[in-house]
Amino acid sequence: MRVDGREPLQLRPIHIETNYLKHPEGSVLISVGDTKVICTATIEDRVPHFMRGEGKGWITAEYSMLPRATASRNIRESSKGKVSGRTMEIQRLIGRALRAIVDLKSLGEKTVWIDCDVIQADGGTRTASITGAFVAMTLALNELAEKRAIKFPITDFLAATSVGILEENTTILDLNYPEDSGALVDMNVVMTGSGEFVELQGTGEEATFSYNQLQELLHAAQAGLSELFEHQKIALGADITEKIEERRKNK
Amino acid sequence: MRVDGREPLQLRPIHIETNYLKHPEGSVLISVGDTKVICTATIEDRVPHFMRGEGKGWITAEYSMLPRATASRNIRESSKGKVSGRTMEIQRLIGRALRAIVDLKSLGEKTVWIDCDVIQADGGTRTASITGAFVAMTLALNELAEKRAIKFPITDFLAATSVGILEENTTILDLNYPEDSGALVDMNVVMTGSGEFVELQGTGEEATFSYNQLQELLHAAQAGLSELFEHQKIALGADITEKIEERRKNK
Amino acid sequence: MRVDGREPLQLRPIHIETNYLKHPEGSVLISVGDTKVICTATIEDRVPHFMRGEGKGWITAEYSMLPRATASRNIRESSKGKVSGRTMEIQRLIGRALRAIVDLKSLGEKTVWIDCDVIQADGGTRTASITGAFVAMTLALNELAEKRAIKFPITDFLAATSVGILEENTTILDLNYPEDSGALVDMNVVMTGSGEFVELQGTGEEATFSYNQLQELLHAAQAGLSELFEHQKIALGADITEKIEERRKNK
Amino acid sequence: MRVDGREPLQLRPIHIETNYLKHPEGSVLISVGDTKVICTATIEDRVPHFMRGEGKGWITAEYSMLPRATASRNIRESSKGKVSGRTMEIQRLIGRALRAIVDLKSLGEKTVWIDCDVIQADGGTRTASITGAFVAMTLALNELAEKRAIKFPITDFLAATSVGILEENTTILDLNYPEDSGALVDMNVVMTGSGEFVELQGTGEEATFSYNQLQELLHAAQAGLSELFEHQKIALGADITEKIEERRKNK
Amino acid sequence: MRVDGREPLQLRPIHIETNYLKHPEGSVLISVGDTKVICTATIEDRVPHFMRGEGKGWITAEYSMLPRATASRNIRESSKGKVSGRTMEIQRLIGRALRAIVDLKSLGEKTVWIDCDVIQADGGTRTASITGAFVAMTLALNELAEKRAIKFPITDFLAATSVGILEENTTILDLNYPEDSGALVDMNVVMTGSGEFVELQGTGEEATFSYNQLQELLHAAQAGLSELFEHQKIALGADITEKIEERRKNK
Amino acid sequence: MRVDGREPLQLRPIHIETNYLKHPEGSVLISVGDTKVICTATIEDRVPHFMRGEGKGWITAEYSMLPRATASRNIRESSKGKVSGRTMEIQRLIGRALRAIVDLKSLGEKTVWIDCDVIQADGGTRTASITGAFVAMTLALNELAEKRAIKFPITDFLAATSVGILEENTTILDLNYPEDSGALVDMNVVMTGSGEFVELQGTGEEATFSYNQLQELLHAAQAGLSELFEHQKIALGADITEKIEERRKNK
Repeated sequence: MRVDGREPLQLRPIHIETNYLKHPEGSVLISVGDTKVICTATIEDRVPHFMRGEGKGWITAEYSMLPRATASRNIRESSKGKVSGRTMEIQRLIGRALRAIVDLKSLGEKTVWIDCDVIQADGGTRTASITGAFVAMTLALNELAEKRAIKFPITDFLAATSVGILEENTTILDLNYPEDSGALVDMNVVMTGSGEFVELQGTGEEATFSYNQLQELLHAAQAGLSELFEHQKIALGADITEKIEERRKNK
Repeated sequence: MRVDGREPLQLRPIHIETNYLKHPEGSVLISVGDTKVICTATIEDRVPHFMRGEGKGWITAEYSMLPRATASRNIRESSKGKVSGRTMEIQRLIGRALRAIVDLKSLGEKTVWIDCDVIQADGGTRTASITGAFVAMTLALNELAEKRAIKFPITDFLAATSVGILEENTTILDLNYPEDSGALVDMNVVMTGSGEFVELQGTGEEATFSYNQLQELLHAAQAGLSELFEHQKIALGADITEKIEERRKNK
Repeated sequence: MRVDGREPLQLRPIHIETNYLKHPEGSVLISVGDTKVICTATIEDRVPHFMRGEGKGWITAEYSMLPRATASRNIRESSKGKVSGRTMEIQRLIGRALRAIVDLKSLGEKTVWIDCDVIQADGGTRTASITGAFVAMTLALNELAEKRAIKFPITDFLAATSVGILEENTTILDLNYPEDSGALVDMNVVMTGSGEFVELQGTGEEATFSYNQLQELLHAAQAGLSELFEHQKIALGADITEKIEERRKNK
Repeated sequence: MRVDGREPLQLRPIHIETNYLKHPEGSVLISVGDTKVICTATIEDRVPHFMRGEGKGWITAEYSMLPRATASRNIRESSKGKVSGRTMEIQRLIGRALRAIVDLKSLGEKTVWIDCDVIQADGGTRTASITGAFVAMTLALNELAEKRAIKFPITDFLAATSVGILEENTTILDLNYPEDSGALVDMNVVMTGSGEFVELQGTGEEATFSYNQLQELLHAAQAGLSELFEHQKIALGADITEKIEERRKNK
Repeated sequence: MRVDGREPLQLRPIHIETNYLKHPEGSVLISVGDTKVICTATIEDRVPHFMRGEGKGWITAEYSMLPRATASRNIRESSKGKVSGRTMEIQRLIGRALRAIVDLKSLGEKTVWIDCDVIQADGGTRTASITGAFVAMTLALNELAEKRAIKFPITDFLAATSVGILEENTTILDLNYPEDSGALVDMNVVMTGSGEFVELQGTGEEATFSYNQLQELLHAAQAGLSELFEHQKIALGADITEKIEERRKNK
Repeated sequence: MRVDGREPLQLRPIHIETNYLKHPEGSVLISVGDTKVICTATIEDRVPHFMRGEGKGWITAEYSMLPRATASRNIRESSKGKVSGRTMEIQRLIGRALRAIVDLKSLGEKTVWIDCDVIQADGGTRTASITGAFVAMTLALNELAEKRAIKFPITDFLAATSVGILEENTTILDLNYPEDSGALVDMNVVMTGSGEFVELQGTGEEATFSYNQLQELLHAAQAGLSELFEHQKIALGADITEKIEERRKNK
């Protein structure tokens, strides 16, 4: 049994509140247990300098935490005048993951700006950000497709979760903060609705893991991800779900 | 009649949700119409360098907006690597205002860090921040006083609102974003529960205002502020309200 | 009697030396007691990005202090790599104040850059900057109007002073540095030659002020400002004074 | 056959020149094909602030490229005034990987600074950096152990390589720059001499990969890594190799 | 004849106004023709980190220009967030030059901060800064010696000037801005009252100079410097001049 | 006899390895004793903003040290977020020196970027950088001339060395690091193959030097530079040497 009473392979409660904010083209508040992230999607009518003229779109992400998202207060990155390595790593991951399930040609020369702002942190903020950002982005791009501005470009579902190995060699799913701090091995898995990997980041924290442990971690992740896709389908509704399934078939 | 159907001297609907986050010592989500701000208070057990050894506490504030709090996306200040003049002006105002109603000697050599993060903006974010931060700070300091760590140090209520003069010479209370953009004169008033001014910032935007207009603006503000104090009392509850009243009398 | 022997409502000696520097289009050295500020005005033949194509001009200001303008040496903001909140607040105030008395349409798509560099500080540097910058800017814009490049765009005089309340409840005018440090309430008033307010910034320093005290502060400021306008008229000369009066009438 | 004539699972030629520089405690010039990296290890007699008093050491890494390590010139990060997200990601990876095979307790309160400076880049700079940095660090720590300053702390060999999937579904080992740019999937594998994973980073570049493809990638990596360990053993010599083997057994 | 009517080896008019500001320990306003620099000296009761415990003092300098010291407005270095290479080069030169004529042991563990702020620029700002800073520093250190806090530490006079070669091969002394822009060779010479060199910086601007031309430049500089020392003696007065002469003899 | 056994006027062993890297248009690894610098030249097909339309080229340089080029580790300038004054001074010097022997008109509107990266430092890194950068630049520009893209623009050889005066009044040539730290006077001399000065920077380190000492320093430098030109000629080969000699005659 885990600190919060969960089974080893049990996710925390998930809630996805869509259209959480009035201004953005797409927005959600996602809660994964006590981890809460506001994800928004903004559509900009041009692409970065290095992509102009290719007829393709781009997706980029930014990630931040409120100073008191955590148990003790963090200094704002705006006050420090620079973004930390951890933040950069996370925002590059979010952008890269989302680009894997969007047909950038259908998007045309537009940029989707994803903003993930962690309101409250209890482990798994980067995976919650990806899972939530997928929904926010899909809402924004669906609206654009509805207006006939673009062809619906989402080619599959996309979600992320974490798995890990605790000191006593238990494989667990969806680590909260105390588990994450104590785990020997920590792996983030980003997967499509079709069960293909998009990103796999396994890290031994002053520790290592064997080939067999890797297989166990991957199976644990797969189980959790199936459940996350169900939450995304409910949040997006039957109509949009169907559009995604259709694009997946015709990929 | 105003764009959102209000009377000239009518406030927007106010909601103050206390203990909105699990980690901070005090936190609220305040909504003033569509303006929504998360205010948190963090207690740190030391004061800044320039105040050490004086036996007094300090209160400092930081303010930020999510990139999509506004109609079009703002570049994060952490990405720009510096904080804008507007942000600095607002955070200096919030800190200064709160220091006026805290007995810094009772606080002892502690710092209260106030964080105001605007989730959604529709005008009046700085005044909503002050009104909300007062509640978050009071919750945090009351808890400290309950633990006998300090003497209860809040000596009065504190709230803020805006007033302005529209093109056609109407004085209005609690400006939303379109009103704020169009107003000739814009004034922020920070006041104590006893009706004393703490801060008065009146600005003609490529315009000026007369002595008589100033008086009218001040009266409009006073009416709005009385209402805001009632919301704060409800949010804080009878017990804390009574403690503040008591400290006010014995000031 | 005050530390420097003045009456409560007496200004310090004022000197305005025009055309102090050879390169700028307009320049003054203003002394208000021991506070000395070099104010220059530079005309640039374009407006900032966000204003292009509107057929209007813009006025922007920068403010700085020499490291030894003060009793102890301040680290340069260029060495720190960033501009302080106080500096930003002051330069925003100066720019905003000057824009209130310039017909930006007459100016056309030009920017006036105001630079206020404090050579020696003894309180009231921001108000001296406004009073001096008005003269420097008027000299520069008058020259432009003389060359028929623009219509004379100054629509009124503009000056600023400070008022305050000391511990023993005396209202005083034009605070020097020791008075400013000790005052309970400090108010900066920016006013036009016609007696209209442009900016009002009243602040209790860990203190508050009543409605009646506010009225007293405003009257003190008005008396001081009348005197400052006389100094500006002498500095600018009868010709330019007359042009301003004319534009004021035809506003 | 590959662009440079290699078999799919063939490494590029490896050279490790030890003690390449005269000042650092440990240094190598590693070449993996045309990729050349100078790796140095510096021992500092203290740990970062957040680790003081724990009696453990720390390992941290920095990574940089000369401006003309690449086909077109890159702007220096010192000129830009900030380190890119890619650089931060790589230096975090190098440090984390090395910490997995050092007994930080044996190290005591010392920091090992690893510097990886890419002189010439042709793909795989981060994996070459890890493979080379391991040798440089081992040389430096062995010297320290020889002087009886610490117990020999290296508990296993450590090397890294890349594997990928090309458009036509070929799995390849040790990608050079043109292969890396064109690959659909790219995976970096960091492994110990005992065949345990330390870090696994698999990324679909606007693409995804299946469970079976993952297995194939892992096997390709394992083959390449065995060869890399042989190069490290030759570079370090029989004596140090034996010490590492001994510590591995007694872990 | 030169643009301003001077002979080739004639200095511009020099004025040194001592005690120009009320706060600094030493201050001058130096004018060399139209070049005007405020030089101040601040005494701090400690030395930089890297010099602690050596029983010696330190002298460091900062240099800046007002935005409109020049014909067109320069962006402030505080706004750009970094100090230019030219500024750094100049402030390093000023500090180094002054350290050559101060007995740092007599100074004890104190730092002299020199600030040179160019109010108006017309060529030769760095040499005017050195000549003026010498006087400001001497005033400050003499006062300290008068209070018996230190032994008088100035061991010689110090001044600087520029010499150059114009297109038509004329050697000129004390270049103003148009001359400086057009010169093929430009040399700054810093010299002691005893005629020893402290610093020599000769530069061909897309040009070169021969051994014979160098000799001619040096002689021109020497003549100008003799005159500058006379101005310094008058500014400092007979008493301080005598103290310097005495320390020079007993060096 | 010197610390490394050299005669006072003896250079350290020089090696210049041309085409050291595969990507840059020109590159060398220069060793001057234990000082090793990688110099590269990059041709860019445009000039900086301030030079457009003049039909002339530009040469600019950047300089950096690896963190462990020196006995103790230096913090990277990219981590500090700013370039030091020393670095700026050196890169300005390198660029200026190279511009003196290139016919910028023949170059056309192109920029040559010089990068000097010190791999190992033992004194004289700036002079080794100039001597090596000359060769790297000449290789790159010769290739361009061979392709008939430009007329061969190098009008003379260019090299640099240092000379100094030690405590016991010995004049020495080509100072290594311990000599440089201990020298009273330190002078860098940049000269053309024709024996003309390009740059002369003589500095007393808390010391001064006489006219006679200056002459002695210059003669010492000249002897060393003659030898350096021979090394450059061998490195560049007879063909390029002849082209330079030809352009020199027709200057």
